[in-house]
Order: sequence, then C-alpha cells, then structure tokens
Amino acid sequence: MSAPWITYRPEIQVLDCTIRDGGLVNGHHFDDNFVRTVYQTCIEAGVDYMEIGYKNSDKIFSHDKFGNWKFCREEDVCRALGDIVDSVKLAAMIDAGRVDWKNDVLPRDRSIFTTMRVAFYVHQLSEAVDMIRDAYEKGYEVWANLMAASTAKEIEIDQALEILSQTPASVLVVVDSYGSMYAETIEHLVKKYLRFGKETNKEVGIHAHNNQQLAFANSIEAIIHGANRVDASIGGLGRGAGNCPMELLLGFLRNPKFKIRPVFAALDQIITPIRKQIDWGTAPEYIITGQINQHPRAAIETRENPELRDHYLEFYDRIVSES
Amino acid sequence: MSAPWITYRPEIQVLDCTIRDGGLVNGHHFDDNFVRTVYQTCIEAGVDYMEIGYKNSDKIFSHDKFGNWKFCREEDVCRALGDIVDSVKLAAMIDAGRVDWKNDVLPRDRSIFTTMRVAFYVHQLSEAVDMIRDAYEKGYEVWANLMAASTAKEIEIDQALEILSQTPASVLVVVDSYGSMYAETIEHLVKKYLRFGKETNKEVGIHAHNNQQLAFANSIEAIIHGANRVDASIGGLGRGAGNCPMELLLGFLRNPKFKIRPVFAALDQIITPIRKQIDWGTAPEYIITGQINQHPRAAIETRENPELRDHYLEFYDRIVSES
Repeated sequence: MSAPWITYRPEIQVLDCTIRDGGLVNGHHFDDNFVRTVYQTCIEAGVDYMEIGYKNSDKIFSHDKFGNWKFCREEDVCRALGDIVDSVKLAAMIDAGRVDWKNDVLPRDRSIFTTMRVAFYVHQLSEAVDMIRDAYEKGYEVWANLMAASTAKEIEIDQALEILSQTPASVLVVVDSYGSMYAETIEHLVKKYLRFGKETNKEVGIHAHNNQQLAFANSIEAIIHGANRVDASIGGLGRGAGNCPMELLLGFLRNPKFKIRPVFAALDQIITPIRKQIDWGTAPEYIITGQINQHPRAAIETRENPELRDHYLEFYDRIVSES
Repeated sequence: MSAPWITYRPEIQVLDCTIRDGGLVNGHHFDDNFVRTVYQTCIEAGVDYMEIGYKNSDKIFSHDKFGNWKFCREEDVCRALGDIVDSVKLAAMIDAGRVDWKNDVLPRDRSIFTTMRVAFYVHQLSEAVDMIRDAYEKGYEVWANLMAASTAKEIEIDQALEILSQTPASVLVVVDSYGSMYAETIEHLVKKYLRFGKETNKEVGIHAHNNQQLAFANSIEAIIHGANRVDASIGGLGRGAGNCPMELLLGFLRNPKFKIRPVFAALDQIITPIRKQIDWGTAPEYIITGQINQHPRAAIETRENPELRDHYLEFYDRIVSES
C-alpha cells in the first residue's frame, strides 16, 4: 500500500487560528491567559504560525463592544503572550473594508507580527491588492485569503488568481467559508491555485470550516493535492461549525516536529471550560447552511436563541424549503 | 469542473444502522416508539435497508440485561414497526460466536427479515462462511462484514476475501471499526474488495466510524471508488464516536429517491431527547483511540465515568504515552 503523501513532507506548515477565528464566536473577548495558553501550545506543538486576531479599525468598531483581538494593538499582544519566541510566527488578519490599513498596519520593524493575512471577497479584489502591496512594502510576509470561494463564479476566481499571482503575496489560501465544499471542489481549487501561483513560487493554503464534518478531511485532501499551508484551531474553535481541529490535523501529519500531546493539554485547560460558555462545532443548523452553500449567519443566530436552537426541522423549512 | 461520481448513480443503496449500532450504546434498550420512528424515517427518506439489531442468542446474553434489539425476535420487531412496507428491507446482524444461528435464524418465509449481515473478525472467518451459507440457504440476502479490517494483516484480508468471494454473500463491507482509516486506506480496501468480488458480482459496502470526524468523508471516498452500499445512522448514533450521519450522507447523494427532510424531523423527535441520556459522537478520547488504531473500549469506559470523562491529557498519557 503506497501513500507517498502521508509521509514526512517538510514543506508543510500549520497555522493556528484559534484566537482569530474563535474571536468571531465571542466578540474577541479572550482573556490574556487564554491567549497565552494557545501561544504556549503552539510553541510546544511545533505549530508554525499563530494568528491572533484582526487589525480592525477602531473608527469602525467599538472597543466597548469588542475584545482586544479584534484590534490586535501591539501592546495588548505583547502583554498577553509574555516571553516571545522565534519559532512561532505571529499573524494578524486584515480584512478589506474593515481596516485602516494605511495607519494601523505598522512598519514591520515596529511590530511583533511577521505576517499579514489579507482576507477579502472576490468583489473586494482591488482593495485587497493594494493591501497586499502595502503590507509587503512595510516588510511583512503576506497571505491572500479569498473568502467564500464556493459562491464566486469560476471566471471570477480565475481573474482574481491571475491578478493575485502578480502580487507579492507568498501564499494563496483556498477558503471554504461556508463549509460547503466536498473533496472534489477542494482538489479542483487547490490544483487551480497552484497552477496560477506556480510562476511566482506561491504556496497554497487551506482554511476549512466544519459544517459538514469535512474540515479535517478537506484539509487532508488539500495536502494530498499540494497545499503546504494548513489552518487549524484547538478544539476546532471558530465561527459557526468551527475549523479543522488541531488535535486531528497533528495526528495525521507525519512531520516529526509536530507534537500532539500539548494540544490535548490545551483542550483540558482552555477548551473544556469555554465550551460551557460559547457554542461552536458541527450542529444540524450548520449542516443545513453548508449543504446549500449559504453563509452560516442564520444558523448562528438560530443557535444563539435558546427558543430556536435545536429545532432542526423548523430551521430546515425556514432556510431550505422556503428559499 | 467534472465530477461524474456525485451525479445520480442508481446503484447506490443506503442502510440505516441507527438501532443496531446505536444499540451498542444503550444496551439495545430502545422503546417501540423510537424504533418505529426510525422505520418511518427510512420509509419517508427513501432509505433502502433498516438494520434493527442483532440476532444474539439468549443462551449467551440475558434478557434482563439487554433490550429487545439484541435478540430481534420476530414478534418484537413486528410489534414495534407496525405496518410493514416493501420499500425498506429489514436487516439483522448476526455476529460470529454470539449467535445460535442454526436455531435463531429462521427460514426466510417465517421471518420479517430479508437480509442477514454476518459480522466477524478475521480469525472467525471459518464460522462466518458457515453462517453465510446457512443464511443464504434459508433464503436471505447475505452481507459479509469483516470487522476491524484496520488491524488485520494484508495477507489475512486477501485470504478472507478470496474465500468470501466464493460464498453466496452478495455484499462485502469495508468496516472501519476503530475509526482509524484515512482516505488512502478506504480507497485501497474498496478497490481490493471490488477486485475480489468482481468474478461473483458482489457489491462493496462501507461502514465507517467517526472517531476522527472522517465517517462521512470516508463514506464519500468509498462511493467515489465504487462502493454502492453505504451505512449511516440518524444523528450518527452508534458505538463510541458513532457512524456516518444520515443527515450528511443524504445531503451528498444526488439520487432523487432520497429525501433529507424526514431525517431532520427524526433528529428533533428522537435524537435530541436521547442525547440527554446517552453519550456518543466524536470526542477527544475517541480521536485518541482512532489515531492509534485501537478498539474504542477504553474511550467508552472513560466517557461513561463522570470522574474520568473529559480529562483528555490524562487519557492520552494512559493510552498513548504508556502503551
């Protein structure tokens, strides 16, 4: 039985998005201890990147309403993380339309971050390209996260990749925002992103959501077809159905630098407690929005309402039968 | 984007194992109403088979300890199901070493069942072959479920398939008892089972467990490579981490005879209530036993003990570090 793709592939690097994507569940209100535990876990587990949050503008979002990790001010990050190590690169997400990137993305030599991940919908491509160039010129490694690829037209994706391939972004990420993709789509998109990125030596990444319990499987599928950057979060913590669970991904990767034991420790320390406070992970409401390739918004709102949550037929009829 | 395998493939048939595999979680103590709801759901959803339980011997197992669906007496099944339809075939599992099959498997014309699924470990092959022949001669359609294929040696599987291919079993099922298989193993085994079964026109089935959140993904993988019989259960109800959830499988299959709405109705009616009473589904303990390809026994025992459950690092150290 030959399986070349599960053996050690040194190019594979893992990005932890526990705090960043998890912040979408709790308004980014993680305390410093929680954030530091994730950071320590990344260090011990051999995870390559930790994405802490957004660099959103406080001209658009209020500090009264949202926690620190929606803004990722340098002083907040430094205080929360404590001693900084080189082995884990720190990433922030900057999303088109929500960031005063000219001012809030500091020159690299004045920042603790090494990496900016530019997130955008296909109609925001133009601003995204400006953001990528700006962050690169300020000294950052830059990733391009084209969100909701499952709802973009094929020709739009092609055109976006054509343009992105000429930017200084070093990674093009296949993003399954709605958790609607099956293996065939992952294969198709990973191969396409690789093809467009080849000339300028770009890596391809995968950011999966777990609506249909496929986040881990789709991440494996992406790796098989050549993706070398993989997002995961501890306990799958992330918006809606959550992300690819780190405890599954590291059990699959054969790269000896990855250690899974610290992830189980983190599940005990921070995930079990927070599960009692906030709701995420595969639930039938997320299955339904995933199956019809829809933003999980309606599912999230329904699950946040104790009177509506866990009435699946009612939700199905509202979302599917009546749509 | 071409994807021939997700289009309508009329050969695909689905077997519901909610009551049979779910019975391993609650000692087979489902009341008649629960069983009838599953049956009605199968009818309305277009599911081809319903597996109700085991035909275990009451010389070995006590009626005081176990519920009706460990024995599947004809009168219990008839009473629970109510009006019987032809569209859903009724299956029972008979497992080697636990069934007085000579006496308890009735001649087909005295039984409500159409199908016997013979379950056995590779070392029980000899008895399994006798059971297959006996059930076939009594008039049943017979499936062969070689359990725990992930721990059998390659040559053992080959020899078993060589022998099974000459029996009157019409389906050879790839069974991932420990939820340890990745897509590559599924592909490898499905192709192998198809190869051995080809001469005698056998179909290949898939029975997946969800330890690593791969039950649905692995079922898709099996379908891609030619499996036409797929096991699933409502809400994934089944031993340990459970099975491929019916609500995911039917969302994937494009065969128009399958209807998903009744499955969401069943989730409301029977799964939400029983979730408050019994525990199943992916949990870190099951991830751990799945990752090391071990029977979920230790994980089940741990999760049944409120003092031990949800202490993942402790479990990991006990099972992995010390093994």
